[in-house]
Amino acid sequence: MQNFEFFNPVNIVFGQGQIKNLSTLVPSGSKIMLAYGGGSIFKNGIYNQVKAALPGFDLIEFGGIEPNPRYETLMKAVEIVKKEKIGFLLAVGGGSVLDGVKFIAAASLWEGGDPWKFLAQRSKFTVTQALPLGSVLTLPATGSEMNGNSVVTRFSTREKLSFYSKAVLPLFSILDPTVVFSLPEKQVANGVVDAFVHVIEQYLTYPVNSPIQDRFAEAIMLTLVEEGPKVLTNRTDYDAAANFMWAATMALNGLIGAGVPQDWATHTIGHELTAFHNIDHARTLAIVLPGIMQVKRENKKEKLLQFGERVWGIKTGTADERIDTTIHRTVEFFESFGIPTKLSAYGVGNESITAICDRFTQRGIQGIGERGDLTIAEIDEVLTLQL
Amino acid sequence: MQNFEFFNPVNIVFGQGQIKNLSTLVPSGSKIMLAYGGGSIFKNGIYNQVKAALPGFDLIEFGGIEPNPRYETLMKAVEIVKKEKIGFLLAVGGGSVLDGVKFIAAASLWEGGDPWKFLAQRSKFTVTQALPLGSVLTLPATGSEMNGNSVVTRFSTREKLSFYSKAVLPLFSILDPTVVFSLPEKQVANGVVDAFVHVIEQYLTYPVNSPIQDRFAEAIMLTLVEEGPKVLTNRTDYDAAANFMWAATMALNGLIGAGVPQDWATHTIGHELTAFHNIDHARTLAIVLPGIMQVKRENKKEKLLQFGERVWGIKTGTADERIDTTIHRTVEFFESFGIPTKLSAYGVGNESITAICDRFTQRGIQGIGERGDLTIAEIDEVLTLQL
Repeated sequence: MQNFEFFNPVNIVFGQGQIKNLSTLVPSGSKIMLAYGGGSIFKNGIYNQVKAALPGFDLIEFGGIEPNPRYETLMKAVEIVKKEKIGFLLAVGGGSVLDGVKFIAAASLWEGGDPWKFLAQRSKFTVTQALPLGSVLTLPATGSEMNGNSVVTRFSTREKLSFYSKAVLPLFSILDPTVVFSLPEKQVANGVVDAFVHVIEQYLTYPVNSPIQDRFAEAIMLTLVEEGPKVLTNRTDYDAAANFMWAATMALNGLIGAGVPQDWATHTIGHELTAFHNIDHARTLAIVLPGIMQVKRENKKEKLLQFGERVWGIKTGTADERIDTTIHRTVEFFESFGIPTKLSAYGVGNESITAICDRFTQRGIQGIGERGDLTIAEIDEVLTLQL
Repeated sequence: MQNFEFFNPVNIVFGQGQIKNLSTLVPSGSKIMLAYGGGSIFKNGIYNQVKAALPGFDLIEFGGIEPNPRYETLMKAVEIVKKEKIGFLLAVGGGSVLDGVKFIAAASLWEGGDPWKFLAQRSKFTVTQALPLGSVLTLPATGSEMNGNSVVTRFSTREKLSFYSKAVLPLFSILDPTVVFSLPEKQVANGVVDAFVHVIEQYLTYPVNSPIQDRFAEAIMLTLVEEGPKVLTNRTDYDAAANFMWAATMALNGLIGAGVPQDWATHTIGHELTAFHNIDHARTLAIVLPGIMQVKRENKKEKLLQFGERVWGIKTGTADERIDTTIHRTVEFFESFGIPTKLSAYGVGNESITAICDRFTQRGIQGIGERGDLTIAEIDEVLTLQL
């Protein structure tokens, strides 16, 4: 195990009916910005529940945060926050609303010029303060409800970038599994795949003798494999919804990644597919991951074999055969949720691969992944395999 | 899964060499009480490392906190804290020092008369404020480094009682696995068994469809089963020490117990064995647990079978045979660490059983355990089985 620091002070309030406890969680006396996305919270009743749980609070609403939240939109919220002297941000939505609110929280107190700097120049500019925020999660997927990560897209330049800060860890997140009941099939599918790949990024690297982290990671993946299809088939199965929701949160709250190497090449490449072609985040991961597993099969050999055995039950055959089956089973899993894993299914061709690789070259990237050795030539190979 | 709240803001700083970061973790400007136990930190060099890591800090030392920390001793520390206007408590030791420091932290700000009240009358008096504290852990076992629990013994009345408060969650805990290198065999054995039974108390109840919590619990137990013997055989195996240490912390930080029923009957009965006979805490657990498994084998049937299969690999035989083997394997595991599981080995006879049961009767207890249905007659049965 490698040395690590683990700090996660998010208060998780989990279960049916927990939204009604909002008034005990929100700091009293604060003027609140209630931020949301496209309006699904009006259809599923969450908006009404949230409003009813905050009687007498001074609320200002900010709706319209997009999937892949846009810098341009969020900067409008920052203006309102400053003008209205907002003291607390309440995100009611999925990962995009949460990520957007984290950006708003940090940008509102940022004094270093254009806030885009702390995304575009992460190595130079660090977020150390932010307005306090909390969340009511409406879509299990990104894990943003229990971490300090945020991904923001600048629409004008087609850039999708991330930042991390302890300052944007939510004070609390309410996880009521009944929000899953009204989710469209596509969002369940995306959520399961997103959470699964989050685990993979922290697990499918090289062994460092970390049996707790490994087995926790496998526990989350096995749960997604078992519960994901149940949620898809019967959206009102409360237990399945609850297990799916808890799995997605545990997948990216820092715990399974503590003390182990991490990859994140699939995300780094996937973000470009979203930036260029607006493909759903989870779908970009389902496209890229099988290519990475193939191209880095030697590098990741021990963990690929362990993953195949413990998650897919693959115990026979040569190492190469078992790795082939492992990749195949992973692809089958993604596709069983109606998520294609080939670029052609999304209308993306060779010319995009060149554009993506050029962008990595412009950024001066030598290599990515847990060893920093997935070169731009290999990124090309990964995407070409997935054409 | 049941509804739950999970909140654990302890900053874990894990790994070899982390003690040197103490000065960045302790709040600056505070007068610090450095609290420790019987002096093993002088022999293993931890005392010197801690002192070297805090140059220029205003430190007052308080040594002599006993295993099963005593109210009488801790109250002396409370007096010093008040007189010297201590602002921060640093526990350097194992679970007893940590639990003692939590009591000191709470009692120093307690304004309701004798602090014993918040242990003896838990249902009436709650700790809501405490001095901030941090820890350098020197013995993996109790999990106290990442929770708000504390167990204190009143020597004069032979009572061993506990309290819980969010206010005594450490700000940080430094976990340097090399502290294991110099532990005597007995403390390693006790630590492994203590951590194992912490998991069991939150796992061996009845199923509530919580696959993440179940598999996390099994992950910790499997790790203790694999790594515990390695630590015992070769104390300087860093990886084994690190995995043991992380397992013990994860066993009792609230995570595997979130959203599931919990038992704690083994602890409740075990505490009486310590209070009356001063038997090491872990050893009392190793005595009581097999009796509970036997007496509550019907109540705990599903989880006993799952535990047997997933932890001990028991897959054949009738349900009754498999439960017998499961209990047998658990006893074998404890005894392989040199820990007897029968009362006779500790010189305890029938008369103590009567005394313990009388005490439960005096406290008005009807039943304990996850269903509150382990009666005093059954506690008698449990202990009689273990004579």
